[in-house]
Amino acid sequence: MKKGMIKLTVLYPNSEGKTFNMDYYCNKHMALTSNFLGKTLKGMSVERGIAGVAPNSPAPYAAIGNMYFDSLEAFQKALSQADQLMADIPNFTNIEPVFQISEVMM
Amino acid sequence: MKKGMIKLTVLYPNSEGKTFNMDYYCNKHMALTSNFLGKTLKGMSVERGIAGVAPNSPAPYAAIGNMYFDSLEAFQKALSQADQLMADIPNFTNIEPVFQISEVMM
Repeated sequence: MKKGMIKLTVLYPNSEGKTFNMDYYCNKHMALTSNFLGKTLKGMSVERGIAGVAPNSPAPYAAIGNMYFDSLEAFQKALSQADQLMADIPNFTNIEPVFQISEVMM
Repeated sequence: MKKGMIKLTVLYPNSEGKTFNMDYYCNKHMALTSNFLGKTLKGMSVERGIAGVAPNSPAPYAAIGNMYFDSLEAFQKALSQADQLMADIPNFTNIEPVFQISEVMM
C-alpha cells in the first residue's frame, strides 16, 4: 500500500468473556466486505492477536482488520453505505470494535 | 505481507496533552529500526491517525507503526536486543505505546 492512501483499521479489544470467530471473519465477513466495496477497496488484511510484548501478556486485540482506499472521499462514500457490513459484526463477535481512519505515511 | 508472518503493531493512543513527532518517527526512528534489524525485518509501514468513524470523532491513535517478521523466533530475537529502539521513544513522543504481536491471517 502506498503513501497517501487512506486506511481504515478496525480493532477488536480482548477482554474477559469476549469471543471472536476468526474463521467467519476471514471467510465470510471480509468476503462480504470485498464484494460490497468492489474496486473502491484497494487492499485488505487481517491479523490474529497472539500476545503483548511483556512476558506472558495477552494480546490487547483479538483481531485487527485493515482496509485501504485511494482517498478520504472514496472511504467516506463506502462508509455511508456500509450498514450491511456493520450489521454483520454480531455474527462473529460480541466485542465492540474501535475504528480508526488513518493516512498511510510510509 | 503474507499469511503466517508475524506482525508487531505499535499503537500510540491519542489523549489530552500528548504529542507525537511524525517527522522524527518516519525519518529517524523507523530508519534506526530498519538499520538495527537488518534483514530480520521483512516489511514496515506507518499510519497517521486522522479520525474515528463517528462524526467529528478524533482518531483513537496518533500513530500506528507496523513491522513484519518471518517467524515468532525471529521477532523474539529482535525484541531481546531492542533496548536502543525503546530508548528512542521519548525523542518523538510522550505517549506510552501499546504493543501487539499478531499472526497475519490474510
